Amino acid sequence: MTSDDASIKLFAGTDSDDFVDKMCAHLKIEKGMGYAKKYPEGNTFVKIEEKVRGKNVYLVKSIAVAPNDDFMELLFWIDAFKRASVKSVTAIIPYFSYAKGDKKDEPRVSIRARVCADCLEEIGVDRILTMDLHSPQIQGFFKKPVDHLSAIPILSGYIKSMQLDNMMVFSPDAGFAKNVRHYAGLLNTPLAIGDKIHRFNNENAEVLEIFGDVKGKNVFIVDDFSITCNTLVSAAEKLKVQGAERIFACVTHAMMSDKGLAALDNSLIEQLIVTDTVNNQRLSGHPKIKVASVAQIFADAVSTIQNEESLGSLLDRYNAK
Amino acid sequence: MTSDDASIKLFAGTDSDDFVDKMCAHLKIEKGMGYAKKYPEGNTFVKIEEKVRGKNVYLVKSIAVAPNDDFMELLFWIDAFKRASVKSVTAIIPYFSYAKGDKKDEPRVSIRARVCADCLEEIGVDRILTMDLHSPQIQGFFKKPVDHLSAIPILSGYIKSMQLDNMMVFSPDAGFAKNVRHYAGLLNTPLAIGDKIHRFNNENAEVLEIFGDVKGKNVFIVDDFSITCNTLVSAAEKLKVQGAERIFACVTHAMMSDKGLAALDNSLIEQLIVTDTVNNQRLSGHPKIKVASVAQIFADAVSTIQNEESLGSLLDRYNAK
Amino acid sequence: MTSDDASIKLFAGTDSDDFVDKMCAHLKIEKGMGYAKKYPEGNTFVKIEEKVRGKNVYLVKSIAVAPNDDFMELLFWIDAFKRASVKSVTAIIPYFSYAKGDKKDEPRVSIRARVCADCLEEIGVDRILTMDLHSPQIQGFFKKPVDHLSAIPILSGYIKSMQLDNMMVFSPDAGFAKNVRHYAGLLNTPLAIGDKIHRFNNENAEVLEIFGDVKGKNVFIVDDFSITCNTLVSAAEKLKVQGAERIFACVTHAMMSDKGLAALDNSLIEQLIVTDTVNNQRLSGHPKIKVASVAQIFADAVSTIQNEESLGSLLDRYNAK
Amino acid sequence: MTSDDASIKLFAGTDSDDFVDKMCAHLKIEKGMGYAKKYPEGNTFVKIEEKVRGKNVYLVKSIAVAPNDDFMELLFWIDAFKRASVKSVTAIIPYFSYAKGDKKDEPRVSIRARVCADCLEEIGVDRILTMDLHSPQIQGFFKKPVDHLSAIPILSGYIKSMQLDNMMVFSPDAGFAKNVRHYAGLLNTPLAIGDKIHRFNNENAEVLEIFGDVKGKNVFIVDDFSITCNTLVSAAEKLKVQGAERIFACVTHAMMSDKGLAALDNSLIEQLIVTDTVNNQRLSGHPKIKVASVAQIFADAVSTIQNEESLGSLLDRYNAK
Amino acid sequence: MTSDDASIKLFAGTDSDDFVDKMCAHLKIEKGMGYAKKYPEGNTFVKIEEKVRGKNVYLVKSIAVAPNDDFMELLFWIDAFKRASVKSVTAIIPYFSYAKGDKKDEPRVSIRARVCADCLEEIGVDRILTMDLHSPQIQGFFKKPVDHLSAIPILSGYIKSMQLDNMMVFSPDAGFAKNVRHYAGLLNTPLAIGDKIHRFNNENAEVLEIFGDVKGKNVFIVDDFSITCNTLVSAAEKLKVQGAERIFACVTHAMMSDKGLAALDNSLIEQLIVTDTVNNQRLSGHPKIKVASVAQIFADAVSTIQNEESLGSLLDRYNAK
Amino acid sequence: MTSDDASIKLFAGTDSDDFVDKMCAHLKIEKGMGYAKKYPEGNTFVKIEEKVRGKNVYLVKSIAVAPNDDFMELLFWIDAFKRASVKSVTAIIPYFSYAKGDKKDEPRVSIRARVCADCLEEIGVDRILTMDLHSPQIQGFFKKPVDHLSAIPILSGYIKSMQLDNMMVFSPDAGFAKNVRHYAGLLNTPLAIGDKIHRFNNENAEVLEIFGDVKGKNVFIVDDFSITCNTLVSAAEKLKVQGAERIFACVTHAMMSDKGLAALDNSLIEQLIVTDTVNNQRLSGHPKIKVASVAQIFADAVSTIQNEESLGSLLDRYNAK
Repeated sequence: MTSDDASIKLFAGTDSDDFVDKMCAHLKIEKGMGYAKKYPEGNTFVKIEEKVRGKNVYLVKSIAVAPNDDFMELLFWIDAFKRASVKSVTAIIPYFSYAKGDKKDEPRVSIRARVCADCLEEIGVDRILTMDLHSPQIQGFFKKPVDHLSAIPILSGYIKSMQLDNMMVFSPDAGFAKNVRHYAGLLNTPLAIGDKIHRFNNENAEVLEIFGDVKGKNVFIVDDFSITCNTLVSAAEKLKVQGAERIFACVTHAMMSDKGLAALDNSLIEQLIVTDTVNNQRLSGHPKIKVASVAQIFADAVSTIQNEESLGSLLDRYNAK
Repeated sequence: MTSDDASIKLFAGTDSDDFVDKMCAHLKIEKGMGYAKKYPEGNTFVKIEEKVRGKNVYLVKSIAVAPNDDFMELLFWIDAFKRASVKSVTAIIPYFSYAKGDKKDEPRVSIRARVCADCLEEIGVDRILTMDLHSPQIQGFFKKPVDHLSAIPILSGYIKSMQLDNMMVFSPDAGFAKNVRHYAGLLNTPLAIGDKIHRFNNENAEVLEIFGDVKGKNVFIVDDFSITCNTLVSAAEKLKVQGAERIFACVTHAMMSDKGLAALDNSLIEQLIVTDTVNNQRLSGHPKIKVASVAQIFADAVSTIQNEESLGSLLDRYNAK
Repeated sequence: MTSDDASIKLFAGTDSDDFVDKMCAHLKIEKGMGYAKKYPEGNTFVKIEEKVRGKNVYLVKSIAVAPNDDFMELLFWIDAFKRASVKSVTAIIPYFSYAKGDKKDEPRVSIRARVCADCLEEIGVDRILTMDLHSPQIQGFFKKPVDHLSAIPILSGYIKSMQLDNMMVFSPDAGFAKNVRHYAGLLNTPLAIGDKIHRFNNENAEVLEIFGDVKGKNVFIVDDFSITCNTLVSAAEKLKVQGAERIFACVTHAMMSDKGLAALDNSLIEQLIVTDTVNNQRLSGHPKIKVASVAQIFADAVSTIQNEESLGSLLDRYNAK
Repeated sequence: MTSDDASIKLFAGTDSDDFVDKMCAHLKIEKGMGYAKKYPEGNTFVKIEEKVRGKNVYLVKSIAVAPNDDFMELLFWIDAFKRASVKSVTAIIPYFSYAKGDKKDEPRVSIRARVCADCLEEIGVDRILTMDLHSPQIQGFFKKPVDHLSAIPILSGYIKSMQLDNMMVFSPDAGFAKNVRHYAGLLNTPLAIGDKIHRFNNENAEVLEIFGDVKGKNVFIVDDFSITCNTLVSAAEKLKVQGAERIFACVTHAMMSDKGLAALDNSLIEQLIVTDTVNNQRLSGHPKIKVASVAQIFADAVSTIQNEESLGSLLDRYNAK
Repeated sequence: MTSDDASIKLFAGTDSDDFVDKMCAHLKIEKGMGYAKKYPEGNTFVKIEEKVRGKNVYLVKSIAVAPNDDFMELLFWIDAFKRASVKSVTAIIPYFSYAKGDKKDEPRVSIRARVCADCLEEIGVDRILTMDLHSPQIQGFFKKPVDHLSAIPILSGYIKSMQLDNMMVFSPDAGFAKNVRHYAGLLNTPLAIGDKIHRFNNENAEVLEIFGDVKGKNVFIVDDFSITCNTLVSAAEKLKVQGAERIFACVTHAMMSDKGLAALDNSLIEQLIVTDTVNNQRLSGHPKIKVASVAQIFADAVSTIQNEESLGSLLDRYNAK
Repeated sequence: MTSDDASIKLFAGTDSDDFVDKMCAHLKIEKGMGYAKKYPEGNTFVKIEEKVRGKNVYLVKSIAVAPNDDFMELLFWIDAFKRASVKSVTAIIPYFSYAKGDKKDEPRVSIRARVCADCLEEIGVDRILTMDLHSPQIQGFFKKPVDHLSAIPILSGYIKSMQLDNMMVFSPDAGFAKNVRHYAGLLNTPLAIGDKIHRFNNENAEVLEIFGDVKGKNVFIVDDFSITCNTLVSAAEKLKVQGAERIFACVTHAMMSDKGLAALDNSLIEQLIVTDTVNNQRLSGHPKIKVASVAQIFADAVSTIQNEESLGSLLDRYNAK
């Protein structure tokens, strides 16, 4: 960091303390003082406990396990910072759960990711720093700059370290194939694609069709997030049927519920690699799950932003590792 | 309702079905089809299940027992209606819990009621219909019209029906006295005022000072909402010490927690009169609680708005009852 | 149309007269009087030549063969209508060329579709009616309602009428597979997917990998638009190599350049089915090209909007044909 | 002030020269060059007469004795500064007369304080610095930061210096009691409360009811502003009747008209303590009026803002004096 | 007026009663009930005294003799109407004094007309109806529709009725020549132009140069407004020197001060024709002044707007009279 | 330039490279790396090729020979810069062709200059730097600061250097006389004015009337821009008829078409002096045209803005040369 360090303040929203502690260690700065709490009646309240006038504030808060509470807390933090005359507020949202609501794929529903973007900007956010959004178009839901990080270098680095032979990556959805192609490039492996189809004459029977030859391969199923593990588990079964050897999985955002973890336990998947964008307490000690932290890349991004360097160059360096 | 009834649609958000059913009965219309649900990962989703293009939509959704869920759901409803090309959306918010966050009474906090107002307007609400906001200034947090109803005629009507002698009304906070004065006027009773003070040399000891002579009176403690019943219960004790005869209480918004109801049970308060602005399941069957429904005044307000009549005249009629 | 017909006015921007004439014939209304012209210095000018105060105006203008001229003209039409006190302006944009610029897929570029959306809304558009946007998320770039039509029922209807045996549909890009799946459903055919990959150690060599067995099939390559016909032509070659029998293609938006048409001429593709969302003069008389008009579905949509019916129901009826 | 002094410019609007001269003396800076004038036809015109590009501008202008002229002048100053490319404009509004219009307490009126807030923000104000707003909620009418000063430490300091025995403070309105409680805390005195009531059966007869025992006390009537002195004078009479010994008064904003001063002359009030937030020429030489200047706390606030220190800490220091 | 008359309400701001009474007589409707007043402290307050929900409201208020009071009152009326849920508010501003502040012709001044336009739109005006703006570009300061009337047909009609021979019209400023050309066309007379020049080496000596031969002509000096009559009087002197026979003048907006009327009295101008866009009490009984009312054209414009007819056609009819 | 040079980046849009190279030479900085291109289908794309985070960016792009392409490119540049987190973007628009569309001079047209201003501000421009706008009111179409340069000192400097005797300047339109008066002042010459009139009974016959005595003068016809040279050429003919000696012309913005240049060739005009605000390739080598560059005054303006000096003072220095 430069001599301008004094102007930076990094705050942790609810459930973000561990992640922010790691970032602060990388950045060699103190965590900002303040807290959020939920009153007995359910209202969220935030309080900044040190002076922030004129500072460049970075607030870490995933919209994750309690997304409505998380989002409202985020709005109140931003408002509190703006009314306290900060110079700028960057919302660091490692996981942005409502990004899934990015289109109107049936009549008379909300485009919830745009609702969230509009509220954040209306209340005064100056920049968003996030990771692996559900679709790249979501950047366009914001008018303010979105600095978009990728977990692919970190996760593929972890996979490389496993030193498996005969690897293949698998995208369980055709629309996600472009991202998995990025893994395939970094890992120098072939790619297979899955696509869900509806059997004719039976609307409810959705089956996964697999495109590509998986026979004898050690396959990594790759996705952006998982809650119930349904997609991963059923893909694993289908891959096995088609002759895959060993099966692993890898997702950026570890939203798994208890049910999801149970499904994983009983599945053909040997190991699931995830990041720490979600502070999911359920994961700790789970034998099949490995967590690769992305706190350093977030810390490096903050440093890049604060020093007015190029984030593109930072990402290139990570991709080249 | 006029011949223009065809243009109206009244929808119920989560927890609002009973209230909306009552309103529909008064208005002699069918409830709109649609639902909100919370996915396993915590994201809220709303879906409108009938055509609404060109309609004047009224959506009932209190921001109450789970205020963050309630508020986000409200935003998504509004967005879904706007994207479905309705003519207008009126958000009917019988209780607006975040109205309490209406000022910056300590440094570096958010003015949460304004945050909520800005988000509602940003997403496209056309009008707000609500009741007994925590302070009248909150109307000024909105640029869109706020039609503000009062539960005082309904609650004081209930109190009158109890036919008590020697009544007095009591405002547990000086800032609330103006509202209690309205009760005093309708009930033709005297008024006493409480004010919390901090004992000198001891910051934490807050005691209630009572202004006015309560000896021998049957006192009604009046407030806008209650959660823990602390204010009501400690006022009752103080009033008893100063000679009050029987003690009752009356609040518009019944946010009582289990702890609050237990406190009420063990208190000197004989009866607590509330309205149904909050769908609080805990109240049912509670021996000390009586619920006076405000669904009809809300229905009358909708009819007034739809027929382009004066809401002021409606309120005058209720006050004159 | 209802008795409220008097309130509707349908105008044609540059290059839209034929399309609007067809719509007017379906709607049984007169085309609105007005014109746009380009002055010698290049400035565009629009003039409305009949009274429009209080009308619901629908303006048809694709952003297509001269997209910058088209877009500026659209803005000036909207401004002229708003300043002329119309009740509402619906921009009917059969093809929205800048929809392709929907993400920031490299550092320091613009998200051009959002720029267009913001300008249209800033100048005052009230609704967008369009067809087969490049990605469904683009609806979320707008806050105003977007009524999104699909050419799939019309194009698949045409394909059915060709009565080919042993058909298969082919998506030349994995990200587009979901749309082609829709064709597969309506036509009751299997699906194959293409995905472009970069050969390792050679960045410029991009090859198309084909997933699925195309041997002996009569294959329809399906895409949303085509300019140079490169994607279609090279897919056709690859499909032939892998044993496809006859090869056809089908795109919604016919943006083909002279070079593109020449490429088509010399290709393995027997026939290319397109719609008339783009007024592409080069197509007329081309032996391999068949145009299926979508003017009627646009006319039906206007009628649906004007009569405040459900567009979802309209689309269902088209899908069921 | 820090080495960044060069970036600050402090300008005086009409009627603010004395106040700004005092502030400049505290801040050890020169007053900015510029003027406002009213043309014969009544239009206000402002002109900045030195370069301000890139400066942090502070403009002092109360909305006070000619509030409409004052407000329009303020808007034109802000616009002139913004178009002259300043870095920021802080409007210092020692008295904000329209703050009284903060609610819709009868049907079909304007919420004038919100109108003012919206216009100031629309024209481009970056921050508001003001004192003793009529209600704390008014901060929420602004989205931009409002730095809100209190005259209580200055006024209570003056009262302390009078060294009266047996003091009591009196709030002539229950809604204002919370502020008077603050005086009571700093002066270590008891508190009494007045509340205006309407006698039944006679709408026009409004009488003041006094809560609390004032017998033998030297009472300070405290309010935020006074124009006609009616409230103060009639409270004094009532207090006397109830046995008060000597009677004084204290208001922050000295808006007294000639009639108000005459009423004060003939009243039981011995002395009225005010500040200089309003440049009220009528006060000079009035035997009952003492002015305590708040220019220093405003200067300290500017210095605090400019040096990016905490205003909360500044207020704490003043409260602790 | 049509059967939709019930939806219209025409209100008079301060100083507009006579004008509105005339309009109501033409429109055969009742004037709306409500008032504005100025409190002793200078604050303006407005109150609507009948129901307006759902109405198309037209409010008449010139920004004229006390432009700051006038403008603030206008904002408060608009806010009161919007919060009272009207359907639309049209501000009828016969004279808009701040239109003169339409450019930044020296460094570091405000563009006051744009400030006014932005505030009116921010507070919610839906349409502006005005007359003879100082420059036609001011329409472009508004985004909302501006219906711009011209007094030229009325004033030139009056001039025609004087049946003078050998007439000529004179524009005292080259920039205003285009408007005077319109008079020349309707009156079928020649035109002369004046232009103010600064003598070299003497900045303060501004002299009027006259272009065109005025010898023996009965000259009408035409301008948009006059306050001091300086321009008219000095032009008259110069015209006389150059041989003009009789001299008259004509201005739309009669803002003359006492000093201006005295100057007119002592001048070579025989008669000054004005309209009633300004309620200038000083004019009554002045021997040289004739007032031609424009209330009817405003009434016709309201009727045109309300009936959704073309205002252009209305103006053509007036021009053709 | 100051030590803060590192924060400045100057980019050239399409057709602006020569102009920017001259500016860079004056400013002693490197031109920013990036490009715009038009794809075969007509879509414009821009790409910034060096890091710009935190920079003050100045982008040069006239809206000139292909104004729609120019304008869209400008919007995309601004969006790309904002999303790349620059500190500010100043759009340098030497010629702003749509400034001509500054009023609604016939019913139901757009005010195109305001449309452009709104879009530029909506997309995020922070400041405009331009020259000789068609009317001074256009500054008021923007809310952001407009720094408005004049070519008059440069052009009149060139004219002076021609050392002609007996000069006169001529304004071909009365509305432009004020600007030509500025030339007359700097050149110390008399002024004549032209005004176009319509002959009665024949709407199409527009003839130029000349006010002022041009006999024996060497006349400079002055205008802001020319496309077809019609105004200049027909004025020259009329001036000759009235006895002018030699005839020259001078316009700021050289938009001449081929037809315009041919007209100039065959005209009585000896020489046409222009600036390089438009990159008009047709001018090179034309015997009658002389180009006086304004790149230095633009460079000086950038330096002035960047160093936070007064632009008014810069213009005064140029006027005094």
